[in-house]
Amino acid sequence: MTDPHNHDHGHDHGHEHGPDHSPASGTADLAAGGGPILVEVTRGSVVESRHRGSALIVDRTGAVQGHWGDIARPVYARSAIKSLQAIPLIESGAFDAFGLGDEELALACSSHNGEPAHVERVAAWLAKIGLSESDLECGAHLPFHEDSAHALVCRHEHPSALHNNCSGKHTGFLTTAVHLGEKTKGYIRYTHPVQQRILGVLEQMTGCGLGAAPWAADGCSIPTIAIPLEGLAFAMAQIADPDDLPEKRRAAVLRIRKAWGTQPFMVAGTGRFDTEIMQACQGRVMTKVGAEGVFCAALPDYGLGVALKIEDGAERAANVAMAAILKRIGALDGADPEIAGRWLAPPIKTRFGVTVGAVRGAAGLAGEG
Amino acid sequence: MTDPHNHDHGHDHGHEHGPDHSPASGTADLAAGGGPILVEVTRGSVVESRHRGSALIVDRTGAVQGHWGDIARPVYARSAIKSLQAIPLIESGAFDAFGLGDEELALACSSHNGEPAHVERVAAWLAKIGLSESDLECGAHLPFHEDSAHALVCRHEHPSALHNNCSGKHTGFLTTAVHLGEKTKGYIRYTHPVQQRILGVLEQMTGCGLGAAPWAADGCSIPTIAIPLEGLAFAMAQIADPDDLPEKRRAAVLRIRKAWGTQPFMVAGTGRFDTEIMQACQGRVMTKVGAEGVFCAALPDYGLGVALKIEDGAERAANVAMAAILKRIGALDGADPEIAGRWLAPPIKTRFGVTVGAVRGAAGLAGEG
Repeated sequence: MTDPHNHDHGHDHGHEHGPDHSPASGTADLAAGGGPILVEVTRGSVVESRHRGSALIVDRTGAVQGHWGDIARPVYARSAIKSLQAIPLIESGAFDAFGLGDEELALACSSHNGEPAHVERVAAWLAKIGLSESDLECGAHLPFHEDSAHALVCRHEHPSALHNNCSGKHTGFLTTAVHLGEKTKGYIRYTHPVQQRILGVLEQMTGCGLGAAPWAADGCSIPTIAIPLEGLAFAMAQIADPDDLPEKRRAAVLRIRKAWGTQPFMVAGTGRFDTEIMQACQGRVMTKVGAEGVFCAALPDYGLGVALKIEDGAERAANVAMAAILKRIGALDGADPEIAGRWLAPPIKTRFGVTVGAVRGAAGLAGEG
Repeated sequence: MTDPHNHDHGHDHGHEHGPDHSPASGTADLAAGGGPILVEVTRGSVVESRHRGSALIVDRTGAVQGHWGDIARPVYARSAIKSLQAIPLIESGAFDAFGLGDEELALACSSHNGEPAHVERVAAWLAKIGLSESDLECGAHLPFHEDSAHALVCRHEHPSALHNNCSGKHTGFLTTAVHLGEKTKGYIRYTHPVQQRILGVLEQMTGCGLGAAPWAADGCSIPTIAIPLEGLAFAMAQIADPDDLPEKRRAAVLRIRKAWGTQPFMVAGTGRFDTEIMQACQGRVMTKVGAEGVFCAALPDYGLGVALKIEDGAERAANVAMAAILKRIGALDGADPEIAGRWLAPPIKTRFGVTVGAVRGAAGLAGEG
């Protein structure tokens, strides 16, 4: 799906052959359809369940440093690319015009827990641009954060669009539309300037022509575009190492990257992978989960981007696969070992709390390779 | 893992070759490791996620009527075989000695929702045998049923072992132990007579030697045994058509089957697959879900047993795969089409409630074959 008109950002992934491919990077199980087994779930001495998937590690030149499964297959990127969707918020000048800061920018990149701090900041941001919760078109759901959900239910309240994990991203969309004088109603539509602007950014950052790509409504009603996994990783590599980007884009990416990495609570919340791993890595690693087993990461210290998709869509597997890849690269070397260990191999416990197994990276992924 | 000492219940699954195997029964994707794709998750025009697995349909002679993937692979049966675990409760005479009825027997076979009706009946049953919640060794968790969980949280209560979805099964174990004068403490241990008795029943009903089979603690702390999928389906076929069983076993199985099929609310609860599908089939179909994507069913009208395991452990896929197999057999023909349709292809919706995709049986499973 490479777009010939997009050659300024074009690159040769060359994942079929070529010197960029380490044969030791975990392709042992590649013959199996749907990608190799990336994650195993053990109970006692037995592997009880298995998760397959595709993943790759790439640098800003498009050189693939490690790959598993079919990295050319298009996947809906879902919430894993909120950092890319925030680029027009910066480049349009909307962000600075409204005097916003890193917390708001992190919320624009977030799938937040709907904890009070998230909800209050999104509400205040909406007020700043002269809008309110009723302008959000993302729909409502109970906070991901169980205690916050329970508190709301026990107050006999219904969740609002503010609690939707995507409310920060949507407020970013509205901010851009207001600043540019665009109609805010319908900003979730594929043809609205907000979404068309993002489509252009996605083409530029992924190096993929997406004008004819399949798309569908995401859970929060905006278009989610089918993008080859290698394109997602390439975009993350541009964030990790933006030196090939035009100056304006480079500046926007650096601002987003900083907010993403240094406001980990705003990006997710209590007990979540993104928050805990980014905190443990002290802002040197940016990760972002998406629905249906998609996960992206940008690693500035290594100049690398990572993207993965678990075939069956399981978040438990996406988390462990991402942790295993970060460890393989070395990005967890300085991280709190207790936190890193918890995400590398989350225990399976009985209802009494006795550990009887674990979710863990499969040999091809976790191995030294 | 067939036990040569167990020839009274032995059978020849012959799944590698032989006249029992229809080549049209969905083996197209068999070359892929880990089983063929049984279930797809769509969004717009694209299949976003895929679930692989193994499944088979068998009759009481062991003749395989349909199979997908590796049916010889041992799987932890988890809660899908609670009907088998209830057999000693009947055969020991414990059930009748305490004057119990179909509701209790269905609870013994259940993974219940922890709704008030479930919790109250388990508590009353425990009182009947002179025990209480503190004798249950299953551990506690919030009710599966969201409204019941919220009500408990808002009353500032903690969940007890009564709310554990396995509390009915555990109360059945305790009832047998009390009746036989066995020590109740430690009834969850592999070596306790309660569990050893069940191990014998599992060997007899599955036709598999299990004395050396791997086992581990289930979520409720009892041993879960690794049993070849074909053995699970064979056991379900003995329930569907118990004419080859010794008379005492046959009588127990018929009583369990009746309670299982005619008390669908006790087996699961509001909004659950087992409850809704068994209600829709008016007691002619018995189904039981287990954790990590295991599902079993007994179909008396057809004399067939069904067992399946989703490789990645996803319940959404296990539900849809079971519904597709039931439909294929014809067991949903008389069922309420609205309910059947909801479980055959549960919609994927946005947070606004707009349908954008579905979970559905893959061609090899759902097709006419």
